[in-house]
Amino acid sequence: MAPKALKFELKTPKGTKDWEGKDMVIRDKIFSTISEVFKRHGGVTIDTPVFELRDILAGKYGEDSKLIYDLADQGGEICSLRYDLTVPFARWLAMNKDVQSIKRYHIAKVYRRDQPAMTKGRMREFYQCDFDIAGAYDAMVPDAEIIRIVTEVFNALGWNGTYTIKLNHRKILDGIFQVCGVPEDKIRTISSAVDKLDKLPWADVRKEMTEEKGLDGETADKIGEWVVLKGQKDLLEKLRANEKMAANESMKQGMNDLDLLFLYLEFFNCLPAVSFDLSLARGLDYYTGVIYEVVTEGSAPSTTPAVEEVAPAPKKKGKKSATDPDEDRSSDPSVGVGSIAAGGRYDNLVGMFSGKGQIPCVGISFGVDRIFSITKARMAADKNVAQVRNNEVDVYVMAFGGKGFTGLLKERMSVCATLWESGIKAEFLYKVKPKLPNQFKAAEVNGVPFAVVLGEDELAQGKVKIKEMGLRDGHPEKEGVLVNLDDVAWEVKQRLQRKQVLDDMTRQADGLRVVHGIRADQIETDVAAAGVESAVPTGTAPTDTVPVNAAPADTPQQDAK
Amino acid sequence: MAPKALKFELKTPKGTKDWEGKDMVIRDKIFSTISEVFKRHGGVTIDTPVFELRDILAGKYGEDSKLIYDLADQGGEICSLRYDLTVPFARWLAMNKDVQSIKRYHIAKVYRRDQPAMTKGRMREFYQCDFDIAGAYDAMVPDAEIIRIVTEVFNALGWNGTYTIKLNHRKILDGIFQVCGVPEDKIRTISSAVDKLDKLPWADVRKEMTEEKGLDGETADKIGEWVVLKGQKDLLEKLRANEKMAANESMKQGMNDLDLLFLYLEFFNCLPAVSFDLSLARGLDYYTGVIYEVVTEGSAPSTTPAVEEVAPAPKKKGKKSATDPDEDRSSDPSVGVGSIAAGGRYDNLVGMFSGKGQIPCVGISFGVDRIFSITKARMAADKNVAQVRNNEVDVYVMAFGGKGFTGLLKERMSVCATLWESGIKAEFLYKVKPKLPNQFKAAEVNGVPFAVVLGEDELAQGKVKIKEMGLRDGHPEKEGVLVNLDDVAWEVKQRLQRKQVLDDMTRQADGLRVVHGIRADQIETDVAAAGVESAVPTGTAPTDTVPVNAAPADTPQQDAK
Repeated sequence: MAPKALKFELKTPKGTKDWEGKDMVIRDKIFSTISEVFKRHGGVTIDTPVFELRDILAGKYGEDSKLIYDLADQGGEICSLRYDLTVPFARWLAMNKDVQSIKRYHIAKVYRRDQPAMTKGRMREFYQCDFDIAGAYDAMVPDAEIIRIVTEVFNALGWNGTYTIKLNHRKILDGIFQVCGVPEDKIRTISSAVDKLDKLPWADVRKEMTEEKGLDGETADKIGEWVVLKGQKDLLEKLRANEKMAANESMKQGMNDLDLLFLYLEFFNCLPAVSFDLSLARGLDYYTGVIYEVVTEGSAPSTTPAVEEVAPAPKKKGKKSATDPDEDRSSDPSVGVGSIAAGGRYDNLVGMFSGKGQIPCVGISFGVDRIFSITKARMAADKNVAQVRNNEVDVYVMAFGGKGFTGLLKERMSVCATLWESGIKAEFLYKVKPKLPNQFKAAEVNGVPFAVVLGEDELAQGKVKIKEMGLRDGHPEKEGVLVNLDDVAWEVKQRLQRKQVLDDMTRQADGLRVVHGIRADQIETDVAAAGVESAVPTGTAPTDTVPVNAAPADTPQQDAK
Repeated sequence: MAPKALKFELKTPKGTKDWEGKDMVIRDKIFSTISEVFKRHGGVTIDTPVFELRDILAGKYGEDSKLIYDLADQGGEICSLRYDLTVPFARWLAMNKDVQSIKRYHIAKVYRRDQPAMTKGRMREFYQCDFDIAGAYDAMVPDAEIIRIVTEVFNALGWNGTYTIKLNHRKILDGIFQVCGVPEDKIRTISSAVDKLDKLPWADVRKEMTEEKGLDGETADKIGEWVVLKGQKDLLEKLRANEKMAANESMKQGMNDLDLLFLYLEFFNCLPAVSFDLSLARGLDYYTGVIYEVVTEGSAPSTTPAVEEVAPAPKKKGKKSATDPDEDRSSDPSVGVGSIAAGGRYDNLVGMFSGKGQIPCVGISFGVDRIFSITKARMAADKNVAQVRNNEVDVYVMAFGGKGFTGLLKERMSVCATLWESGIKAEFLYKVKPKLPNQFKAAEVNGVPFAVVLGEDELAQGKVKIKEMGLRDGHPEKEGVLVNLDDVAWEVKQRLQRKQVLDDMTRQADGLRVVHGIRADQIETDVAAAGVESAVPTGTAPTDTVPVNAAPADTPQQDAK
């Protein structure tokens, strides 16, 4: 095929991006942290197609249905890209009648034709990490485990103390609306006004209720007294102390649930992170019980727009109009990152598909792109965060020689094959006669920790040199150590293991903040004292890079369910 | 939201499926095996959007472009689902001008509106696992490493000796066509006729060349003498021995490349799996050098249709016509699984996007769904394959008691929290007062190896019982071992580690076929002899299940590039 250059706009579609390099490493670390927690709780994964029959998605997302991406009608079935992972899961449960209970997780991309704000992790193609417990069980036990999972995920990401799990109950909210006198047919619309309290002050929400949605002012004021309240069990007591609330049937059911839930959260040792927040309502219709949403610094917008100027996307180079739904709103201060995880109980969704045979479900969805964007901002701010490597290569295999140097390609290839055979990650330069500085540079660019250096004289004696990269000047092994060619894989492995132990200790020390600038010799003394087995001559020092799989766990969600 | 049952056709779109249960575990094992090899060779991953601007895909796939899924025009940009991972990679390289070289891998779904054959892994939504080396390097060095990667992947999957890497060179093929007298403008179409030699006998291919494509019979016969040949370096010598071939410019370039390639494959110790096969042509236009395709038993169709009845999809319940492009052809004997990996060198594709600044590339794509379908068929046939578990739970936490039994929910939750804290995978039954048999059943269904059993009397003494599941009657620990409640996480961890060692040894023994039915006591003797540290009283025996992450590596690809 002859090369011919065509005129393209070289870009990804709006609201989508390529993930690459260090971003990819950080995101993968977030995925593995989350899925490890999911597996720890007995989760199994299922994978559904990226598109569904359009009928399956229809009628599930209320007015957000306009955000669904449709496939073109090319003959055959009519399909749309999935909008979340919850509806496909409910469809799967309805199809697989032999499955009456399951803890399933699913980490995959979902699609929404929403106005993007890329740097805040608000994308049109984004990842969700969902964990759901389906099955008829005793009240609130699985619900409590979902909250426990939330705490384990964010603690594993290193966010201890910097996040809040906002929690409410649809039946309590409905009880409040009933007691305050909201007509039944206005309950959902008033509920979605309340849901805006995280972005708007009460005065604006009240205005929406009365002026836009025709609620009388007195009812709105009564609601206003309740929905601004936050607490834990104390708030439950406060609700119960109100005679009308205590007598409301829906309220009673919700309060009984939360009594149990708070008890179980104590058993699970995860109550402190929870805030019982009467302003939390959640948008989607299908929730029937407990609802929750996790927020952190950056979730809320940095400015609060007045009602009359909602969505005032600032003009960008005057190129687009302020209301262009395709425009990126990353720099709009009225757009926050939003919730970083959200979910709740949905007991009736499976029944929408299967007709009979409801399967009650409760679940959580982590917004990885938002979690990522916050992590990245924090890493940029924290100079102490360990360097993230691009790849995981352990060893760079090089050669050098004087006049008449052949390049030793055969020997480099054969040493690499030996290392690969032993599971060691190894690279070499794809040049027949490479220059030594170029080989070192290639290794340094990716922070490869060891070099195996081949020289004709050493090879003639059956020897090669192993050199740890980045040793300080004057270090006894700065120039490398000669080892037998036949043992090269074993020798490298010993050094990698030893380095792993040193790196772990450095990290641990850093983590405990016991030592501020711990020195190599000290760590080695500690390692020796700890009886770490070592077949390697002493003197190896920790380097300044941390392998990829030890990327800092400090890390950041898209609106969930 | 009130439950209301709507009339749905509860299914996934044609050519797509849900992945679940053991299939998911096996597929994940294939993914992790492949990506481990990719990382071992310095690969880094990038992730591109599932849809691209339609212009990016246009003009890349020849007549297969009709198989591209389009998104509906809902205003804004015109997009299509990606057809492979190669074109998005080339688009990415063209966009990121600072990247002049990279080893990238990408494991993701691609989309083709092709006629499906589900049980043979021929799907409309399917996974590809791609590894590509981009950059201007010395000839054939990266090409050889790609082949080495193929061998490492299939060997790691346990397929040693059961696969063949068919290899050819576009320039050699073009040389043959030129020498045999094919007019320049017919070379690509004659090439795609040759590519059918893996499904059709020569007589049929000749017929297509002469009757359909207007080649004269003499030229076809000359081609026929060459393209049926297979070999290694010997075949290269045979080509070179022919004066006309040896003098052809295109042929010379191709032969020089293959001289180097065979040499490098020897250095990499991976020549035996390679078959230089002059019938391999590959469909896609963008290849410019070496091409390869990996086949195994099952790749070829079990019957060979005659030319006049190509695609004779057998009628299925008389419901659909034989030529319905939506019909599943799983039971059609003229449909094989096809190649399980394929790729080649494409030096001009990036230039199609960037105009100037070519980046030469060579890559391979593994068809995981096909690899899976073959693996599954083999596992079904092999009774010795270890059982695959659904989940990875280590411990089931249970309680029992006599009259007045409270269910010990608080204690079960708190023990679980302690185990989770230590990273141990643990579950309990979501019942306030569970029955003991139900708890054991729940553990057994998923092959959970250990139970922690709580009883009121034992708890009063600060003790709990750890019980290894599946011990034989009469085993000294059949009834479990009492340990201190405070040490429960440590005690479980010791047992899990010990079990891991025993399982590894069992698997190793099985793998070496040294022992046929190895017994627990023997293994323990071996473990003791090997000096395996154990803080656990002896007597633990291997169970009959193997943890998920030790799922057998025996495993099975969609057409690649």
